[in-house]
Amino acid sequence: MKLFKPFNLDSFLGEAYILGASKVTATDSDYIHIIETNDGITWAPNPQPYSCVVASPKKESKLKGLKSFIAYQLTPSLNNIQVSRRYKHFDWLHERLVEKFCIIPIPPLPDKQISGRYEEQFIERRRLQLQSFVSRVSNHPILSRSDVWLHFLTCTDAKRWKSGKRKAEKDEVIGAAIFSVVQVPEKALDPLQLDSQTEAFGRFVQSFDTAVRTMQSNFAEQVKRQQGPYKRDYQRIGQSFRTLSTAMELLETAPLTRALAHTADTYDQIALLCEDQPRLDFEPMGDLLHDYRGLLASFPDIITVHKGALQKRRELERSATEGKTESNVVIRAQQRTDVVSYTLLAEMSYFHQERVRDYNAAAKIFLQEQIAYYQKIVDHLQSTLSQYKDV
Amino acid sequence: MKLFKPFNLDSFLGEAYILGASKVTATDSDYIHIIETNDGITWAPNPQPYSCVVASPKKESKLKGLKSFIAYQLTPSLNNIQVSRRYKHFDWLHERLVEKFCIIPIPPLPDKQISGRYEEQFIERRRLQLQSFVSRVSNHPILSRSDVWLHFLTCTDAKRWKSGKRKAEKDEVIGAAIFSVVQVPEKALDPLQLDSQTEAFGRFVQSFDTAVRTMQSNFAEQVKRQQGPYKRDYQRIGQSFRTLSTAMELLETAPLTRALAHTADTYDQIALLCEDQPRLDFEPMGDLLHDYRGLLASFPDIITVHKGALQKRRELERSATEGKTESNVVIRAQQRTDVVSYTLLAEMSYFHQERVRDYNAAAKIFLQEQIAYYQKIVDHLQSTLSQYKDV
Repeated sequence: MKLFKPFNLDSFLGEAYILGASKVTATDSDYIHIIETNDGITWAPNPQPYSCVVASPKKESKLKGLKSFIAYQLTPSLNNIQVSRRYKHFDWLHERLVEKFCIIPIPPLPDKQISGRYEEQFIERRRLQLQSFVSRVSNHPILSRSDVWLHFLTCTDAKRWKSGKRKAEKDEVIGAAIFSVVQVPEKALDPLQLDSQTEAFGRFVQSFDTAVRTMQSNFAEQVKRQQGPYKRDYQRIGQSFRTLSTAMELLETAPLTRALAHTADTYDQIALLCEDQPRLDFEPMGDLLHDYRGLLASFPDIITVHKGALQKRRELERSATEGKTESNVVIRAQQRTDVVSYTLLAEMSYFHQERVRDYNAAAKIFLQEQIAYYQKIVDHLQSTLSQYKDV
Repeated sequence: MKLFKPFNLDSFLGEAYILGASKVTATDSDYIHIIETNDGITWAPNPQPYSCVVASPKKESKLKGLKSFIAYQLTPSLNNIQVSRRYKHFDWLHERLVEKFCIIPIPPLPDKQISGRYEEQFIERRRLQLQSFVSRVSNHPILSRSDVWLHFLTCTDAKRWKSGKRKAEKDEVIGAAIFSVVQVPEKALDPLQLDSQTEAFGRFVQSFDTAVRTMQSNFAEQVKRQQGPYKRDYQRIGQSFRTLSTAMELLETAPLTRALAHTADTYDQIALLCEDQPRLDFEPMGDLLHDYRGLLASFPDIITVHKGALQKRRELERSATEGKTESNVVIRAQQRTDVVSYTLLAEMSYFHQERVRDYNAAAKIFLQEQIAYYQKIVDHLQSTLSQYKDV
């Protein structure tokens, strides 16, 4: 899992930004807007929302077949022009996003996997995981509009691709510098209220993270159980009926021996259902949990950044009452810490909205697939039962 | 399990019966009739068929409460008069039946169990097992008419009970002597055809026995799996949802947190269903298998008795061609081995008829209960799914 790059609070944020010493040159597209609505403080929505489909992973090769790799085809609804991207391109992009948006948890990429990279099922699952990453970035009001992301999503020309990469790697509006381009409402925030709000959020993040880990390990265990012991158990029930049918067939092929053989086949089919089923219920939920582990792993650092800003502000306020700091310095520092707080509040609000949507949808899909699974077992058994005649 | 008492072939059957030296005094009720119908050679059916219900096991005590035991209430449709019998009475009866009917596999009693003898579930399961024993004896054309069985089934008077027991224990028409009271059709049997028929039956008994053992151990294992690991797995899925709900409840009690808690409850309920389910499907099938292991265990001895009789007959036939044995001795021996063969054929035919009926019914019940189980899971999950609102 891609973890959040630690953000050096003291040397950079504390000194440079809060004290107003950091200077960056920003273009219009760099600016980030935070607004207050009936739902509270949120990111300004993307005026041109779009989606992107990740499709048909293809095995490609270069250097005359010496190197082979999987390329995924991305088609954004922005322009409907397909681009081909490899895992290493995603990896490069992810690094840029983490570097640039220290205040936003970047959705994690799927785990790297070396062995069995070209197996069909693995490739399809990775496609789904990349689709999830791409959808999360495309849906995010800020990430979806960033230059580096749009470059990744739309560039089809090899030359422009290279120059765009170089430009992104030289981007100065990264790390704490991002705060310089954040536009927030005029209203000053209440530091006491903020303290209790962010503290509650910190506690929530911690127990949510524990819950996600618990569920992730339980669900991964369940996948193994179904593909191993459960499958074998169903096969063993099938084997019982088959042995019985074979023994009875020594005497005659009667309706009973045929029905018993049919029952054996049915349990073998159920064993295969059971083995395949996790692909439809436990694994998709596992992918969501993987995303959330990545997202949640970023928050402690973000909360620390925010705490550090508030602490610096308090130091300056104390220093001002002692006459050691000028009041206009304090006022500017207060405005700047409010920017930090506004970004945290906006991202908290976005995170909650996504969390409810994601878990609601995931639980529904999980239950629907579980229902379909048990229903299939019922149907198989029903049709087997009808093989037994009245004797 | 009660095993069949070995039958001493050489000293008793070989000498006494086949040579016509054994003399028994039999009453009318002792006689056993074998007939030939369109279905082949069978026991003459019981002209007064009846059934018997084993009900309401009661904990009783004697010696001022020093000794306590479970008494089962038997009500035969013969007279609708209830009798009370303990396991030790069944055990005594079983010994008598095994002793008397060396040619008929006596249905086994449930296994003795020392610990937990008074647990409700154990008592109920034992009642079902005894019901099965009683039904098998009551249905059997020969066993159902025997004096000792009818005494067990109908005697309500303590004094008559004791004298009846003494009489049964002194019964002379036991072991190979039973052949003296078997009335068979006139038609002589073809020894060559018998050989191939009984050999095929022997092979069938062997592989049926293996199938029953395989199924019995597989099903017993499945019971343990469902009451242990499966149950815990469902609980673990429940726990995953509960932890998630609890974490989210730190922020708000929203429809999602309630739906997640409901999902947790549902998987806990499924865990309990899973634990209880074997009582309805795997255990009843296990009881049938227990019965058949007992029945099948008797056949090898019965087949050996039959083989021994045919061998003795061949010896006499050879000896007659050499002029060492008189032809009327051979003719009588041939008639007597035919009696042995007729009993085997009658019981083989009865056994097959019961086998098809039993396994057909048991497989149907098993499948019906499996369907009901998976259907209950579907219903639980359906009602949980309806707790999730559109976000």
